[in-house]
Amino acid sequence: MKQKVGIIGLGLIGGSMALALKEAMSVKIFGKDTFHLPKALDLGLADKQLTDENIPKMDIIIIATPVNTIGKIAIDILNKINPNCLVFDVGSTKHKIAQQIENHSNRKNYLLAHPIAGTEYSGPEAAFSTLFKDKMNIICDADKTDKKILTKAIQIFDNLNMKTIKMQSAEHDKHIAYVSHLSHISSFMLGKTVLDLEKNEKNIFDMAGSGFASTVRLAKSSPKTWTPIFIENKEHILQSLEEYIDNLNDFKVMLYRENRQKIEVELEKINHIKNVIDKVENN
Amino acid sequence: MKQKVGIIGLGLIGGSMALALKEAMSVKIFGKDTFHLPKALDLGLADKQLTDENIPKMDIIIIATPVNTIGKIAIDILNKINPNCLVFDVGSTKHKIAQQIENHSNRKNYLLAHPIAGTEYSGPEAAFSTLFKDKMNIICDADKTDKKILTKAIQIFDNLNMKTIKMQSAEHDKHIAYVSHLSHISSFMLGKTVLDLEKNEKNIFDMAGSGFASTVRLAKSSPKTWTPIFIENKEHILQSLEEYIDNLNDFKVMLYRENRQKIEVELEKINHIKNVIDKVENN
Repeated sequence: MKQKVGIIGLGLIGGSMALALKEAMSVKIFGKDTFHLPKALDLGLADKQLTDENIPKMDIIIIATPVNTIGKIAIDILNKINPNCLVFDVGSTKHKIAQQIENHSNRKNYLLAHPIAGTEYSGPEAAFSTLFKDKMNIICDADKTDKKILTKAIQIFDNLNMKTIKMQSAEHDKHIAYVSHLSHISSFMLGKTVLDLEKNEKNIFDMAGSGFASTVRLAKSSPKTWTPIFIENKEHILQSLEEYIDNLNDFKVMLYRENRQKIEVELEKINHIKNVIDKVENN
Repeated sequence: MKQKVGIIGLGLIGGSMALALKEAMSVKIFGKDTFHLPKALDLGLADKQLTDENIPKMDIIIIATPVNTIGKIAIDILNKINPNCLVFDVGSTKHKIAQQIENHSNRKNYLLAHPIAGTEYSGPEAAFSTLFKDKMNIICDADKTDKKILTKAIQIFDNLNMKTIKMQSAEHDKHIAYVSHLSHISSFMLGKTVLDLEKNEKNIFDMAGSGFASTVRLAKSSPKTWTPIFIENKEHILQSLEEYIDNLNDFKVMLYRENRQKIEVELEKINHIKNVIDKVENN
């Protein structure tokens, strides 16, 4: 018998989750999306509509909406599920959501998850079934999830070929600010800096190469997804941004002083980042 | 009869130039490299050694060394060439080199070039024959090059399937600071910021995804290549860095104030950078 999976939010992440689950397991997808439902049904990301009436029949419910909306939706869903239903979200921030659901009587049915997967594209058309394959998946505060429900969740992530690791939600939010959210801001602001110059001096983009394209790639990301993430994780992002700006200012001083040796030693140290990149890219 | 091509500096750029010329034209390569010559000969990047004695026999000489060394090498080479020899360099900065060779009696044999091509790797082993294919090539102050010599140069770039455009060297250096040099600094400093945190809090790199890898990719670049570029183009880079830091600070304030609408409008404007990236990536 097919498992009934409700997915709320059928953009890049929710839509890819639908396609991946359909390939890996025997499921029927019930979708809900304020803007994209007809498109999602067209593309086969959902088989039916998820409604207040069929929520209690679901075996699994996945919340894949902008992070600022997840807490409220989670509470609404937890109010309506059957006792065996697994509910998880896939948002890029975790701690505020953890706090919002903390005291719900069905908290044990919920798992905070964050698959480290995405592209710079968004919407149902951007979804594809292999998005999560071989990617890391962070699950947070897992001790607050019922053991049987947790086992069910981990089985699903295994079926999607993800590598699941556990973490506390507060720690997750701090670290992800540095390795993901800050990258997005540095990329957006790099794009802005160059676009500002382009206003006055035409055709400079003829000179852009693959290095610029790579560094600025995340500036194509969806403002509707990322603005809520930035605000939700404001505290840690402000901290990381400050350190980033400090480093840029330090570099500016070294460059102003033409301190060749100091710059070279500094850049050599940073070259060690290649171990990290190679690991990500070989995944 | 094979054209004799001298290449000074047989790393990623000079080595790839050797391989590309060998595929596109009938050439014999005479190489010079303080560190890598045996390796370069092994890899077939050069057929013979370029020496003071055979420099006058060369039809073409290419200078592909770190930018701070190019001016001096250029003068030395211009002192020794035959009257029909084309000499060009492929450095990422152009204006200081232009000034250094300005009054040389053989200035007309010289062309300032900058193929917009590269990877984050370096050294002879990183060289490959298709590096320049379909890439932009900026030639600077071309009116100072003898017409016949210039025609010869453009023919070579055409043979390598590059798209050549003309620009003044000062303008080149300003624009390239924004679309290339700044990207490298933003990427290096992002790498530093995250490595600094990693020192105290382990395993955060488990959380790094493809977005981080893309944004930080240029932080793998060679310090020996890039330190001289940064110092050589210091003035324009400091200007671009200041604007970048200003934009980051403005963003920090918007985020601190949780000005959701303003952030979203700002990010939407920056999304237009996708036209640029798509153009680069479809090249």
